[in-house]
Amino acid sequence: MAVNDIDRLIQILSRLPGLGPRSARRAVLFLIKKRESLLLPLIQAMQDVASSIKPCSLCGNLDDQDPCAICKDDRRDGGSICVVTDVADLWALERTAAYRGRYHVLGGVLSALDGIGPEQLNLASLYRRVGSGEVKEVILALGATVDGQTTAHYVSDRLQGFNVAVSRLAHGVPVGGELDYLDDGTLIQALRARSRL
Amino acid sequence: MAVNDIDRLIQILSRLPGLGPRSARRAVLFLIKKRESLLLPLIQAMQDVASSIKPCSLCGNLDDQDPCAICKDDRRDGGSICVVTDVADLWALERTAAYRGRYHVLGGVLSALDGIGPEQLNLASLYRRVGSGEVKEVILALGATVDGQTTAHYVSDRLQGFNVAVSRLAHGVPVGGELDYLDDGTLIQALRARSRL
Repeated sequence: MAVNDIDRLIQILSRLPGLGPRSARRAVLFLIKKRESLLLPLIQAMQDVASSIKPCSLCGNLDDQDPCAICKDDRRDGGSICVVTDVADLWALERTAAYRGRYHVLGGVLSALDGIGPEQLNLASLYRRVGSGEVKEVILALGATVDGQTTAHYVSDRLQGFNVAVSRLAHGVPVGGELDYLDDGTLIQALRARSRL
Repeated sequence: MAVNDIDRLIQILSRLPGLGPRSARRAVLFLIKKRESLLLPLIQAMQDVASSIKPCSLCGNLDDQDPCAICKDDRRDGGSICVVTDVADLWALERTAAYRGRYHVLGGVLSALDGIGPEQLNLASLYRRVGSGEVKEVILALGATVDGQTTAHYVSDRLQGFNVAVSRLAHGVPVGGELDYLDDGTLIQALRARSRL
């Protein structure tokens, strides 16, 4: 029905992951109804993010300072670097509070299909960090997909020349997982890497 | 991790219908990655909507002009008013292009549970419009829920004193619907309102 401002907002919102045209329409009506309590604060929060957030020049994490809070934090173990695909994965690991080293965000994984080669990834700065001598271990926390594992192998190969231990996350039965819902690949890995009780 | 600007944006975004914390996180990372092509245009579109869109003082539709484009459009039939719960329903009817009259947006339905009585709805201006004499028919296009039908009965009763025909949308089998997936209520209505071939 062509209210232009509303239509344009719906069209832009529907490009977000997880929102289609229908849910974008609902979201826009909701925003207009809650102009003071939601729409205006949302605009402000987006402006803040747009003006302050930038990638960390050391690790690729997103933060309002550069180097980021994690790279700057002296209480974290500078001897360990956890390599992740994306900032979302870094956040997921941080939520566990189980890792106290530093990170390195690749910004993607190698993918012949999407035309992503090593030069598109944030790798040069990883080699530089590893080559600086402080780093003792590199943990490759990449997804258990074909592209993720290909990337892990590639990075692991390239790190051979450096004097660091390279590890990857364990594969196995996820906590809470039921065996008969798991794929064969996971079961085989879990069986191979079984541990004594 | 506590990047405050990002956290605040995630928190506000996750209040939108259809977005939870997880999809809000994904959306925010997506927005930051596409700063120029998505985040900045989205901020602009939201500012435009926040500054220009307001409810039509005649019918309650949302538009950047008051009266809205539909109320202003002389080619539309001023003798027919279609009463809807919400602007989303008005949009749904407009997408069909099957109705060329005017609308009236109630802004909700009567609900004892939510404490919504007649005075919370946009009803006074409906009676005023119907009482002005131009209106010949009022179509109650309210949802086929208990609250929607209660509201339809209430409005229909209140319109008895005016010289207008009051109708409601037909109930029946939805186009593309399979009989054995339909509830009993719909089947009973469809049977009662069967039409000769």
